[in-house]
Amino acid sequence: MRFDIVTCQPELLRSPLGHSIVQRAQDKGLAEIHLHDLRQFAINKHGQIDDYVFGGGAGMVLRPEPIAACLDGLLAERRYDAVIYLTPDGPTFRQGTANRLSLLQNIILLCGHYKGVDERIRTTYITDEISIGDFVLSGGELGAAVVVDAVVRLLPGVLGNEESALSDSFQDNLLSPPVYTRPAEWRGQEVPAILLSGDTPKVEEWRHEQALERTRQRRPDLLADLPAEAFEAPKPRGTRRKPYKKL
Amino acid sequence: MRFDIVTCQPELLRSPLGHSIVQRAQDKGLAEIHLHDLRQFAINKHGQIDDYVFGGGAGMVLRPEPIAACLDGLLAERRYDAVIYLTPDGPTFRQGTANRLSLLQNIILLCGHYKGVDERIRTTYITDEISIGDFVLSGGELGAAVVVDAVVRLLPGVLGNEESALSDSFQDNLLSPPVYTRPAEWRGQEVPAILLSGDTPKVEEWRHEQALERTRQRRPDLLADLPAEAFEAPKPRGTRRKPYKKL
Repeated sequence: MRFDIVTCQPELLRSPLGHSIVQRAQDKGLAEIHLHDLRQFAINKHGQIDDYVFGGGAGMVLRPEPIAACLDGLLAERRYDAVIYLTPDGPTFRQGTANRLSLLQNIILLCGHYKGVDERIRTTYITDEISIGDFVLSGGELGAAVVVDAVVRLLPGVLGNEESALSDSFQDNLLSPPVYTRPAEWRGQEVPAILLSGDTPKVEEWRHEQALERTRQRRPDLLADLPAEAFEAPKPRGTRRKPYKKL
Repeated sequence: MRFDIVTCQPELLRSPLGHSIVQRAQDKGLAEIHLHDLRQFAINKHGQIDDYVFGGGAGMVLRPEPIAACLDGLLAERRYDAVIYLTPDGPTFRQGTANRLSLLQNIILLCGHYKGVDERIRTTYITDEISIGDFVLSGGELGAAVVVDAVVRLLPGVLGNEESALSDSFQDNLLSPPVYTRPAEWRGQEVPAILLSGDTPKVEEWRHEQALERTRQRRPDLLADLPAEAFEAPKPRGTRRKPYKKL
């Protein structure tokens, strides 16, 4: 999968894109990430890419010409599945968005900065908009880093163990159950005994109950979307629950 | 304001914290950001900080001892207003959260990684939890970068023009209106004439209508929280609307 990120702050993105899972995905040849510096498409030799907002008021707006020049160059080179603008007024990014994007081949992520981009860029080039949440950041760069991280870890082969991504929060619309690791006793606090029992079906049942309970307490809104069977105890692995069986 | 970020990937955070507004805030002495590498508190000379999850299954969990050692050191040095864990099952970060955090003096941001931190760390140390959204990332580092960016830009003196942050999306529960800059005509598309009119009250009214309309179309959920007067046209600057005046 190929990401082209268009930004006036490419240096800001170097370290998030060069570490951890995202770097591993690139090392394995599973993701390609290209940064494009808007200043290379400035309208004059002073490197100008922004200008005052029409109508008055504080804040600068990215001018259309540098963005258009950069996007025109990319769009002439290959077919893109989506040209995405990171903006707080876009639809909110969720795990489902990441799942869908992970099936695409080539996407462009355009980062706003200052007050954003000229509206005409949005109507001319943008196929999709994404907001990573109801808050304001200095630019779209962190949003782009979030999108890349969330998507790249879903690409087959990127995580060492496929199961790990599927058991994350939100993939089944439930929050994750609490997790524990060694030592079994730490500062007088013991790990729940069930987790040390070796009884895998019981452990799975406990985890499911904990996930449901945590979701009920913290995010009841997520439960509204769940099918009825999600509230039942999990099936033992490798078998199917028989219908109408009494529990 | 002081941020202490506890992470097993401090290098991942270098460039987001070293550019743009966040760097400017540090240069001005308005924000201090300290990165703490969990590996410096590893349980052995191999640098171990994580371990297998109790009960079986994929993914590693951060052990309690390195985190406890790091946090104990910080908590002994100064009073912290909040010890925040970045986790997808925490309350969702919004602009209001950023506003509240911007009033604090010292906060710790603990980044999970892999499957997260041992639950006993959460019950022992954590005063607040934050999720930046309903999606899964490789770790809490980008969440921490988002929180720092959103909060730092609210600190008095960080932005060049105070008004700029206040007119951002979400500060009044409305999305921003479209913005335009030079050139007034670009590829046959003209900027709305009202913005070139120089008639400031009319411009303000147009912007308010656009903001309302955009919010109605894209995020009707935000409008439910608005007081009735938010739906009226804005007051001309420097004057107060008289009550009961016919419009």
